[in-house]
Amino acid sequence: MATTQTIDRVLPGLLSRRAKDLPGPRLGDPRDSAKLISFLAGFPDPKSLPAEEVIAATRTALTNQGEWALQYGATRGQQPLVEALIEKLARDQDIHVAPAEILVTSGASQALALIIDALVDWGDTVITEQPTWSGAVRAFSNAGAKPVPVPVDDEGTDVAALERILNERKAEGITPKFIYVISNFQNPVGVSTTEERRKRIIELAHEFGTFIVEDDAYSDLRYSGQRIPSIYQLDDGGTTLYMSTLSKTLGAGMRLGWVLGDAGLISKLSVLKVDGGSNVFGSYVAAEWIPNHFTGHVDELKRIYHRRRDLMLKALNEHMPAGTNWTKPDGGFFIWVTLPEGVDTSRMLPQARERGVEFLPGAGCYVDGGGKNTLRLSYSFASDEQIEPGIRILGEIAKGELLEAKV
Amino acid sequence: MATTQTIDRVLPGLLSRRAKDLPGPRLGDPRDSAKLISFLAGFPDPKSLPAEEVIAATRTALTNQGEWALQYGATRGQQPLVEALIEKLARDQDIHVAPAEILVTSGASQALALIIDALVDWGDTVITEQPTWSGAVRAFSNAGAKPVPVPVDDEGTDVAALERILNERKAEGITPKFIYVISNFQNPVGVSTTEERRKRIIELAHEFGTFIVEDDAYSDLRYSGQRIPSIYQLDDGGTTLYMSTLSKTLGAGMRLGWVLGDAGLISKLSVLKVDGGSNVFGSYVAAEWIPNHFTGHVDELKRIYHRRRDLMLKALNEHMPAGTNWTKPDGGFFIWVTLPEGVDTSRMLPQARERGVEFLPGAGCYVDGGGKNTLRLSYSFASDEQIEPGIRILGEIAKGELLEAKV
Repeated sequence: MATTQTIDRVLPGLLSRRAKDLPGPRLGDPRDSAKLISFLAGFPDPKSLPAEEVIAATRTALTNQGEWALQYGATRGQQPLVEALIEKLARDQDIHVAPAEILVTSGASQALALIIDALVDWGDTVITEQPTWSGAVRAFSNAGAKPVPVPVDDEGTDVAALERILNERKAEGITPKFIYVISNFQNPVGVSTTEERRKRIIELAHEFGTFIVEDDAYSDLRYSGQRIPSIYQLDDGGTTLYMSTLSKTLGAGMRLGWVLGDAGLISKLSVLKVDGGSNVFGSYVAAEWIPNHFTGHVDELKRIYHRRRDLMLKALNEHMPAGTNWTKPDGGFFIWVTLPEGVDTSRMLPQARERGVEFLPGAGCYVDGGGKNTLRLSYSFASDEQIEPGIRILGEIAKGELLEAKV
Repeated sequence: MATTQTIDRVLPGLLSRRAKDLPGPRLGDPRDSAKLISFLAGFPDPKSLPAEEVIAATRTALTNQGEWALQYGATRGQQPLVEALIEKLARDQDIHVAPAEILVTSGASQALALIIDALVDWGDTVITEQPTWSGAVRAFSNAGAKPVPVPVDDEGTDVAALERILNERKAEGITPKFIYVISNFQNPVGVSTTEERRKRIIELAHEFGTFIVEDDAYSDLRYSGQRIPSIYQLDDGGTTLYMSTLSKTLGAGMRLGWVLGDAGLISKLSVLKVDGGSNVFGSYVAAEWIPNHFTGHVDELKRIYHRRRDLMLKALNEHMPAGTNWTKPDGGFFIWVTLPEGVDTSRMLPQARERGVEFLPGAGCYVDGGGKNTLRLSYSFASDEQIEPGIRILGEIAKGELLEAKV
C-alpha cells in the first residue's frame, strides 16, 4: 500500500483548469456575521423569517402529500410550487408564463450555473454590469468565461457603453454569449435600470445576436417609486432568460429559485440539471406557504427594509467624510458607497472587524480589478439599533484612511 | 423591436458544446410512476417515508433555530448536520472524518458534479464501471468526459480488466482523472465489490496516479452478509473521494448528500460550490431527525426491502423465460436481469407500459452503446402486492420478444 503522501504526488496533475488557482472561499456565513454589526451580505432580516408559518405549512404539506414531499421530484420543479409561482409572477410581476417556460432551481445561483453550462464554453465572452453580484463574478470565473464590464450609473446599465462594447467585440469577430443584468435594485449598487434603457438593451441584444440574462432577486421589495416592466416582459424576441428566488422573501434557507425563458432552451437547462429535483421537501412547504402568506409577509419586509434604508442614509449623511458618495435605493438591500480615489476599502475591513463591524469591499464585485475605493452596505441583516453605531465606526475608519491616503 | 423569431436566429450560435445534441430528459417522475407498477427508478418506498417524524423535527428545528434554518447557510454544510453525519459515519460505516474532510451537497448528484468540475476538462478520460448509474452517465456526457468502461461481475469491479485498461491508456500517454465505483449493491447490478478487489483498485489507482470516486448510496441498506470496509477507509493514500446521500434513508426529497476526501481537495470543491448552502432548511430538520430516528428507521427499511427482494426473486424464478439470468443482491434496491442475446429491452418498455408496468432498459447504464438485452428492476417503490403481477407481465413480454428474436 502507498504512503499518505500519494495524494500530494497525484492530485496536481489531475486538477481541471477551473480547479487550478482557485480563490479562497467567498465571504459570508450568517452565524459568524451575527457576532458583529454586519452590513456584509444580502442576508434577509433574521427576526422576520416566518418560522411559525413554515412549521404550519410543513405540517399541512407532509400530512397531505408526505409521500411526494420526501420523495425524489420532477427535475422541472414540483407541480404545486410551479403553479404557485406562475400565479405569483402574474400577480406581482405581470409576467405570464406556461409551465414549459419555467424551471425551478436551487436558488438563483443554480439558475445562473445552468445558463452558463448551456451557453458558455471555456474562453467565451460574456458581458456583465460592473459592479455586479460577487457570486456571478465567481460563477463566470469558475466556468472560464471572459467577462467584459459595462458600467452602471444612476439610471442603471450604461447602454451607450454597452453599444460601444458590442461593436468592439463584433469588430474582433466575437459574439458575447449573453448580457448579464440585475434590473431592479441592482446588487451591489441599488439602482434600477430605467424602462427606456431596458428597451435599448433588448434592441442591442437582437441587433448583435446575443442573449440577456435578467437577474431579478429584489423586485418584490420595492418601497418607493413605480414598478418598471421586466426586460423579460419587454423582449418580444424571446432572447431573455429571467431568474429570481424566494431567498429574499420566504427565506434563503429554502434554496429555491427559478428561471423563465423560451421553452426549448428551458428544456435544455432541465437536461443539464441532473439533481433529482431542487429541494423537493422545501418545494412542497413553499407551495403551501406562498398562496396564504407571501403578500402579507412581503408587506412586512418592505416596512422593515424601508425603515432600515432611511436609518442608514441618515447615518451616512452624519458620519461619512466629505467627498464620499452613495446611492439612494427605492428597494432591495443595498447602498453603494464610493470613497475618494486613493482609499482602499479592503484595508478598512480588518479595522472595521476589530471594532465589531463588517461590510463588503467593492473589489469583489468587479471583474477588472477596479473598485478599490468602493464598498457595499447591506441594511437587511443588522438591526435598526445597530445601524447608526455601525456607520459611525465606518465613517471614523474612512476618515482615518482618507488622511493616510492624502499624506 | 424584433419579431418573435429572433431566438430561432440567435440561439443556435450561442449554445455551448455541452448544450448541443443533448439527449431527452431522463426517465423518472415518481408521481407518474405511481400510476403504474413501477420497477423503474431508485425511488424509496413511499409508504415508509417518515412524514410524522419530519413534522416533529421541523417544529423543533424552527422553534429553536428558525433564524438560521431559513437563512443562507455555510457553503460547507450546516454545523448541526455536519456533526450528525460525522457521528453517523463513525457508527455505521466505521469512517472517521474531521469537519474539514466533509462537504454537504444537494444529494450525491451535486457531489459528483463538483468532483467532475474539479477534475475533468472537456475531452478528459474517466474510468467507470459498466453498467453504472444512469445519472453518472449523463453527468460524464454533460461535462464532455470520455468514459472508458470496466465490466462488473459477481464480485464487483473486474480488476483484471481495470489493470489492462489503465495500461492501455498509459501506453497512449493518458492518465484517467478517476475511477468511478459504486462499491455496495451497485446501481444497477446489485452486487458489492469484494474487499480483496477494493484493495486492488486502490493499488492500481496509486500505481497509475489516478483518483477513485466511491459512490456509496446504499450501504446502510444491507440485509444479509457482512459489511465490507469502504475503499475510502482502506485507501491510505488519500486518493479516494467518497460520496453518499440521505435519499435512500431519510428521504430523497431532502436532497442532501455529502462527499468526503482530502481536506485540500474538499476545500476546492467548496469554492466551486457557489450555491448559498445546500438545502439549509432541510439540513436543520435532518440534523434533528438523524440522532433520534435514523437507526430505527433504517431497520424498518431493511425489513421492507429484504421482503420485496425475496418476492421479486421468487417471481423472476416463476415467470422469466429460460436463458434469463439475474443477480441476487444482499442489499440496496436493484436486481439486474440479462435476457438472451438478441432481445432488445427498449422494445419491451412500451409494451410493458401499455400493460401498466415499467422498468429501466439497461442501455441507459452503458457508456458504449451496449446492454441492449439487459434491464434493471427496482424493488423499492412498488408495493409487495404489485411485485408478482408486474414480473409476470414482464415475463410474458420477454417470452414474446424471445420468440420474435429467434424468428
